[in-house]
Amino acid sequence: MTIQYILELAGTFFFSLSGALASKPREQDWFGATFIGFITAIGGGSLRDVLLGSYPLVWISDIRFLYAILAGILVASLLYPALIKLRRTFFLFDTLGIAFFTILGTEKALRAGVAPEIAAMMGMFTAVMGGVIRDTLTNEVPIIFRKEIYATACLAGAVSYLLLNAIPLPRPASFLIASALIILIRLLAVKYRLSLPRFPGAEKE
Amino acid sequence: MTIQYILELAGTFFFSLSGALASKPREQDWFGATFIGFITAIGGGSLRDVLLGSYPLVWISDIRFLYAILAGILVASLLYPALIKLRRTFFLFDTLGIAFFTILGTEKALRAGVAPEIAAMMGMFTAVMGGVIRDTLTNEVPIIFRKEIYATACLAGAVSYLLLNAIPLPRPASFLIASALIILIRLLAVKYRLSLPRFPGAEKE
Amino acid sequence: MTIQYILELAGTFFFSLSGALASKPREQDWFGATFIGFITAIGGGSLRDVLLGSYPLVWISDIRFLYAILAGILVASLLYPALIKLRRTFFLFDTLGIAFFTILGTEKALRAGVAPEIAAMMGMFTAVMGGVIRDTLTNEVPIIFRKEIYATACLAGAVSYLLLNAIPLPRPASFLIASALIILIRLLAVKYRLSLPRFPGAEKE
Repeated sequence: MTIQYILELAGTFFFSLSGALASKPREQDWFGATFIGFITAIGGGSLRDVLLGSYPLVWISDIRFLYAILAGILVASLLYPALIKLRRTFFLFDTLGIAFFTILGTEKALRAGVAPEIAAMMGMFTAVMGGVIRDTLTNEVPIIFRKEIYATACLAGAVSYLLLNAIPLPRPASFLIASALIILIRLLAVKYRLSLPRFPGAEKE
Repeated sequence: MTIQYILELAGTFFFSLSGALASKPREQDWFGATFIGFITAIGGGSLRDVLLGSYPLVWISDIRFLYAILAGILVASLLYPALIKLRRTFFLFDTLGIAFFTILGTEKALRAGVAPEIAAMMGMFTAVMGGVIRDTLTNEVPIIFRKEIYATACLAGAVSYLLLNAIPLPRPASFLIASALIILIRLLAVKYRLSLPRFPGAEKE
Repeated sequence: MTIQYILELAGTFFFSLSGALASKPREQDWFGATFIGFITAIGGGSLRDVLLGSYPLVWISDIRFLYAILAGILVASLLYPALIKLRRTFFLFDTLGIAFFTILGTEKALRAGVAPEIAAMMGMFTAVMGGVIRDTLTNEVPIIFRKEIYATACLAGAVSYLLLNAIPLPRPASFLIASALIILIRLLAVKYRLSLPRFPGAEKE
């Protein structure tokens, strides 16, 4: 078991946990919460692998991922009152999660032999598309269309990872620096309410 | 032509028919109704096969499924007034449909070599995801997020099928018992308005 | 570089451009507009290839498509005020786009070995599903469910292409005639407000 494998399992657990906490359709029952946590945790990576045609999907071939997801949902339900008070902690976990999954996804796409531009996009997809699918299913406007720097931080991190690989730095160092960059951009964006320029023609709210 | 094959064609026909009857976006024209019936009928199985990477998809390699779908839509339009009065009959057909497709999907996933837990999930996906995709496209909240036992009945049936296979019972017997269990749970759930416990934090309506 | 390849790149550019112009979620920023343009441009073809299992997807293996998409978005932003006044020009570009992608998609599906009925459907998917996915993500009712002849024109063109291939006409001639038919149907439908008959039970608006 490599450190990367353990981190991937842990990231899946936290994505599932935050998915089960985040989305609150009315009268959501246990099945709905589990389904939502599951989609959030595996949606991004599954989309990446289906687009790349790289089978089998990791959660289908390795049953541990399913149990990491179920554990995330169980913890979400048991510790619900405490966790909801810890919103800041969860913002942090989500940020760690997208940082890690972006670089992991970029790396996996590179190994599948795609161009660096495509790999960066696949890294970003891995981190954000689970949430996009979740929001679409529950009729919410996905976070990436809201006025906030989120997916852009992932893209910036993925690009920096590719540049660092070209130096060449040892991969673990590139991994850490690029992840830190994503976390930094995201924290600064939320703290100083940074946003990207509006696209021409977009109505002001 | 095996009995399973004929049942699969018949199930596709009924799913398409109920899809064309169920969803009523305003001013829906023939194209829209056909598209919706089609998605309802093939969405779940297609998602399963794309996730498993098991190509070709059955409706792409066997043209009879397309004609079963078109027949379902034609019947829906011709007999519309009569069918709408038979709502109870249709509830029954839908219930037979999800029962059959759950077990069929579980069996197909098992044959693709996945773990039993994954196979049970794939069986449930086969039965319910066509409806989920349909509801998402037409901006409705998918039935599986509403307060009703639906997908959970499928999961219970899939799990019981896997347990029965371990006994070992002959497969047709397992198939029938597990399907009957799904139908029973669904009928009882609707009759006695059974629902799963709410997930912590879900608002009461 | 064949003419077909150049047309495919150009079509991708125009689909991306019209995607970036068409969809206006509130306060849309540069990332959102780019994402939407991207989905519009590659969604239909990607769905076709994932359903057919024909890997690698063209935009993943050929980086030029990504740059055609980015160029479409850049042009959309730079020339926004001028382009918005040219709505009629854009209706024309979109119509050329769906005509071209329908026949291209039909041809690709045929080469993948599917039945003609399936190929026609895949051609229509290629042309319209990018827009369907875009509308679903931004919580709009997809154009194909609105009261207008759109996807039906694509289907008619795809079927005529298959019939013309059976004559046998040289492929470029079939290509041109079938595309022209799609354009003609679409123009007439918009000019004379033609629509398909309503499906039984659809409410009048």
